[in-house]
Amino acid sequence: MEQKKYKIGIVGFGGMGNWHRETLETIEGISVAGIYDIDEERVRYAKECGVHSYQSLEELLQDPQIDLVLIATPNDLHKPIAIQAMQSGKHVVSEKPVTLSSADLQEMIDVAKKTKRLFTVHQNRRWDEDFLTIQKIYQEQRLGEVFRIESRVHGSRGIPGDWRQEKAHGGGMVLDWGVHLLDQILLMMGTVKLKKVYATVTNVTNQMVDDGFTAILRFETGLEVLVEVGTSNFISLPRWYILGQNGSAIIEDWDLRGRIVRASGKNEKDVVPVRTAAGLTKTMAPRREDTIFTEELPKVKSDIRDFYRNVIKVMDGTEEPKVRLPEVMRVMRLMEAVFESAKRHEVISFE
Amino acid sequence: MEQKKYKIGIVGFGGMGNWHRETLETIEGISVAGIYDIDEERVRYAKECGVHSYQSLEELLQDPQIDLVLIATPNDLHKPIAIQAMQSGKHVVSEKPVTLSSADLQEMIDVAKKTKRLFTVHQNRRWDEDFLTIQKIYQEQRLGEVFRIESRVHGSRGIPGDWRQEKAHGGGMVLDWGVHLLDQILLMMGTVKLKKVYATVTNVTNQMVDDGFTAILRFETGLEVLVEVGTSNFISLPRWYILGQNGSAIIEDWDLRGRIVRASGKNEKDVVPVRTAAGLTKTMAPRREDTIFTEELPKVKSDIRDFYRNVIKVMDGTEEPKVRLPEVMRVMRLMEAVFESAKRHEVISFE
Repeated sequence: MEQKKYKIGIVGFGGMGNWHRETLETIEGISVAGIYDIDEERVRYAKECGVHSYQSLEELLQDPQIDLVLIATPNDLHKPIAIQAMQSGKHVVSEKPVTLSSADLQEMIDVAKKTKRLFTVHQNRRWDEDFLTIQKIYQEQRLGEVFRIESRVHGSRGIPGDWRQEKAHGGGMVLDWGVHLLDQILLMMGTVKLKKVYATVTNVTNQMVDDGFTAILRFETGLEVLVEVGTSNFISLPRWYILGQNGSAIIEDWDLRGRIVRASGKNEKDVVPVRTAAGLTKTMAPRREDTIFTEELPKVKSDIRDFYRNVIKVMDGTEEPKVRLPEVMRVMRLMEAVFESAKRHEVISFE
Repeated sequence: MEQKKYKIGIVGFGGMGNWHRETLETIEGISVAGIYDIDEERVRYAKECGVHSYQSLEELLQDPQIDLVLIATPNDLHKPIAIQAMQSGKHVVSEKPVTLSSADLQEMIDVAKKTKRLFTVHQNRRWDEDFLTIQKIYQEQRLGEVFRIESRVHGSRGIPGDWRQEKAHGGGMVLDWGVHLLDQILLMMGTVKLKKVYATVTNVTNQMVDDGFTAILRFETGLEVLVEVGTSNFISLPRWYILGQNGSAIIEDWDLRGRIVRASGKNEKDVVPVRTAAGLTKTMAPRREDTIFTEELPKVKSDIRDFYRNVIKVMDGTEEPKVRLPEVMRVMRLMEAVFESAKRHEVISFE
């Protein structure tokens, strides 16, 4: 067997912990030393997979062959485990949300600085191809100047029935899915300042934590972004909707069904009004076919393993982390602004 | 020829003025006495249609056979003409928006009271079948308790290139289309108080007036409504989207394509996560087919002529107006709150 360069210990071997194991098995230069989980069923499952289980977190952290710890526990445990791991000399990758508040995150960052350990967050949805395709459309200005972006994730199952329903464990959709969607938007906007945040949350199936939210973000350029997560949506609106001065684009779903429609430059002189049951409208009449053209999406391919390939190079000392702590802090502060806006029913000035 | 009971004079014979003439020709009990327009081309068109043209507004208002005046001029002229007409003893139907501010509207209402004339507004889109269908779904609680409604009208032509682009004439999409969409929502909500309004406007193709807006309305029950008008949208989002605890409904367009999807009551135990390029999600996995069922929309038919039939009965003294002035005032105040919110980037407390 190949002697891999780095060894990783997985703390928390639920659905995502196992996803990490499966993914890591296909990456050169790193291998899984073992897992730790408090749930005996997951320990049994690890055994079935041929993966070593540590008896305790301490045993895992004291194993000198482990370079890196992946934390995929309930959200409230990321912080104490990350701090303990870094103080034990391990590099750390935490699942998202990194923790429950910007104050907690600052403590974690301080420990990372002090121990000189790598500390980064698995913002995996930066590699989702729907996002990368929208980012390309935006960056290449394929629609002219973009004035509105809408990013939605809709399901109808409510919140999964475990710790994700409890506030103390960092449950709720802002922290679970919001952390991805808001991170994607801030990444896309780069250095453009986010000025105003207005958000509302829903409690349809769950009174303890938000089971959905709608956030309106207004950037300094005037560009407006709607970010929405819903878990009582039996019909889904499109994953992405983006409007530029000269065209619009839509991505329906994770399979990247969608299209771009742009103005051809030809104008109509005699617009035929649309007649509805109760009136007529020229403004909202559909375009004549020759005044627009439809294009395929410029689909971007990605490989999620690039996340760990970057982590390896950071440990080698040859790359900077792809998911940087100031970015993680900005998203955490934005989630706090979302909660604050929803609680106070006010617009929050952000940057 | 049948001697009709009431005669109407049409002031402003543009697209909508002519729509009124055509509609009125099919209604019993009322006939068009003539029109007045300042545009010679429209006067010529009236002649082609066999419709009498008055030489001046005064001539029209002084014709004793006219009972009722329909005002379909640019928006800023509704007020002076309505007041002059009522003071000349005529009943008045004004096109929407009735005027440009709640203060102006109050003046008009005061004149109506003083002259004891009928004064109402052609909120014709109360008769649009998409709206009536959503209203039925909402009122019959077909989705369980409704927590979110979204009402959108999207086009890609910008604002028509006439007075509708000018602030002084009451141009812009809040006054043009917002007045319909907001009226529909307030009508549907009835006595439920609207507590909070947050709105943003766009200036994509026009710097003088808004060429679109998004308003988030939060009612005292917690129900949230998004109302949106866009004129640079080359792909349209659905006309209506409504979410209840047990189901969702969508109406795509004015042809009432759409559906209801509801929970069947059956639950899934072993949810299969959806795998995307960069991760997996159980929360957002689609439902298994037997846990939901799809229904047709309960389509409501309407007859826009019921607007004038009601006006006739109000003149007969046997009915109250369908479009009541307190409702018109509430919509006007809401449009003012939309403008104020968009200008200040703040949430406005409404009722």
